[in-house]
Amino acid sequence: MTKFAFHILARDGAARRGEILTPHGAIRTPAFMPVGTQASVKAMYPDQVHALGADIVLGNTYHLMLRPGAERVAALGGLHHFMNWPYPILTDSGGFQVMSLAKLRKLDKDGVTFRSHIDGSEHRLTPERSIEIQTLLGADILMQLDECIALPAEGSEMKRAMMLSLAWAERSKAAFEEGSGRALFGIVQGGDKADLRLQSARALTDIGFDGYAIGGLAVGEPQAVMLKVLDETVPALEEKLPRYLMGVGTPDDILSSIERGIDMFDCVMPTRAGRHGQAFTRFGTVNLRNARHADDPRPLDESADCPASRTYSRAYLHHLFKAGEMLGPMLTTWNNLAYYQQVMDGARRAIGEGAYDDYCATIRAGWAHGDLPAVS
Amino acid sequence: MTKFAFHILARDGAARRGEILTPHGAIRTPAFMPVGTQASVKAMYPDQVHALGADIVLGNTYHLMLRPGAERVAALGGLHHFMNWPYPILTDSGGFQVMSLAKLRKLDKDGVTFRSHIDGSEHRLTPERSIEIQTLLGADILMQLDECIALPAEGSEMKRAMMLSLAWAERSKAAFEEGSGRALFGIVQGGDKADLRLQSARALTDIGFDGYAIGGLAVGEPQAVMLKVLDETVPALEEKLPRYLMGVGTPDDILSSIERGIDMFDCVMPTRAGRHGQAFTRFGTVNLRNARHADDPRPLDESADCPASRTYSRAYLHHLFKAGEMLGPMLTTWNNLAYYQQVMDGARRAIGEGAYDDYCATIRAGWAHGDLPAVS
Repeated sequence: MTKFAFHILARDGAARRGEILTPHGAIRTPAFMPVGTQASVKAMYPDQVHALGADIVLGNTYHLMLRPGAERVAALGGLHHFMNWPYPILTDSGGFQVMSLAKLRKLDKDGVTFRSHIDGSEHRLTPERSIEIQTLLGADILMQLDECIALPAEGSEMKRAMMLSLAWAERSKAAFEEGSGRALFGIVQGGDKADLRLQSARALTDIGFDGYAIGGLAVGEPQAVMLKVLDETVPALEEKLPRYLMGVGTPDDILSSIERGIDMFDCVMPTRAGRHGQAFTRFGTVNLRNARHADDPRPLDESADCPASRTYSRAYLHHLFKAGEMLGPMLTTWNNLAYYQQVMDGARRAIGEGAYDDYCATIRAGWAHGDLPAVS
Repeated sequence: MTKFAFHILARDGAARRGEILTPHGAIRTPAFMPVGTQASVKAMYPDQVHALGADIVLGNTYHLMLRPGAERVAALGGLHHFMNWPYPILTDSGGFQVMSLAKLRKLDKDGVTFRSHIDGSEHRLTPERSIEIQTLLGADILMQLDECIALPAEGSEMKRAMMLSLAWAERSKAAFEEGSGRALFGIVQGGDKADLRLQSARALTDIGFDGYAIGGLAVGEPQAVMLKVLDETVPALEEKLPRYLMGVGTPDDILSSIERGIDMFDCVMPTRAGRHGQAFTRFGTVNLRNARHADDPRPLDESADCPASRTYSRAYLHHLFKAGEMLGPMLTTWNNLAYYQQVMDGARRAIGEGAYDDYCATIRAGWAHGDLPAVS
């Protein structure tokens, strides 16, 4: 069995092209991880997701512990087998969703007690239980339990959450089974305060993880704040280990973060937007529900490889959303994930060629130029 | 361009194996036509539908005339192009859905005026307009406008609707463009009255159609009533032309009707049931929402060809329905349409081998035996 490892294969400024090895295969970085919250990347067959060029998907500990349950998934052969995805999986720690979805949550130093948003049943998540659940699921990359707060926030609140996350990092590390070939990532917190972020990054480095995530961003702050935090935080992370920016983001967020040395991303945006009729394309975002598409015989992007982008007219996609047909979300999600992976593929190639700035400029010029003019 | 034609290739009792030729390709009969109500077979990509062995799909005139509109579909290149289905399409006449879905419908001798169930707008459907819409859509097989009533009904009501449908049959024929290569089917009505059915069949034969449908069944009557009507009606239909039993049915209904000389079927059952977690298999129907599947690592049917039937565990399918994931309907619809096509494929083969009775007995024994025992 292959053990977790990270190799940097090329650099262009702070941007890196690399390869992460895991027990379930390799991940080309920079990587975008489609989100499979409840053991399914919504509206997609798993082999489709892989065929797009996604090497890894994300599973959500909070959702899976509640339904179908981690012990059940383990008895059924683990999450890879359960969801028919034999490739790498990263699981989050459950902390973020406990804070955003659960009812009557009560945080203490030791962990968090909460009621399920599904049936009101009481559950407890501690750093140790989170690691246990992620191990039962069989994740290739596990995340420490942390506390993620919304921005803007008081400085004292940012510090408290960061310090608690650090304590939980230490306990997560102690609970993690070394030598399994799996990886455990620490999560840098500290809000938008450079000193807190640096303190968090250094303390995590002292504990020692297989990779480092930057959490607590994409929680309501402007892009400029997020990029400033990256500028301040990334240099404090171990150069030779992978860096994961959690929950980010738009294609532009991703390009800007790769430029600053981020290797991994996850976001529900391409799947969620796809279900609501918003398509990501090289022309920018296209709202398929808009009446301008009703008579448009052109596909989303005739130059794209993905059949969803190339083979179906905008008029048809518009009709599917107006008519509430499931095929609308299916095709638009497919288009969106294909476009995200196309952006990542181009970024990896450009970094290898030392042309990352030019690549970003070209992509952004396409977005700025905007969508095709409406048919007359 | 190939013109419509029907060739009977083999017989076994009253059952026939044949081939229908249309401008968009051949249809192997007996054929099951998946229903693409709003220009989409729900939860399926069109190339998937074809790969299952479906040679033809059905489109609904009522839905398509309201949204996106027949003239719009025509301007966009016709229904085949619009929905990415380059194979044969049959459209119904709109009559059935006007009666079951539209608001404030007012039937007169000339046609029916109704309000859209979508936005309340007023529309009118006449035999001539129905043919015009179906021609704009570009259907390979068009259906005459008829009036379909629910059973049980008064004899006088059955007679009135049958006579009106006959008058509309004549006008539909007059409005239909001959020499287009397309086909127009007449629809036998008459409820459960043998004399009315015979009168309808003979009068339609006098008008002369490319094929004959039996309408007004699968509208609430027991299976025995439906089969009795077939026994009484089919012998009155021209032997050399295709026979289409509208809106039918369960796999057992279909086997019993093929035995009586029916060549074509359509039904929303496999797609609708799939969206609600009911799977059709060689073990009978399986309710995937049932808790007995929650820990079952076995697929729906490990001997099936369809990936949806063979590759995903019942536990996973159960989870997808409990969690409200779109992939549940996607996979179960796929399984169901695959199973229906598998039944049809076996029927065609058995008729060719003169073994149709044995085939039906084997299939029915599988259903009677029932589903796999629950895992302990």
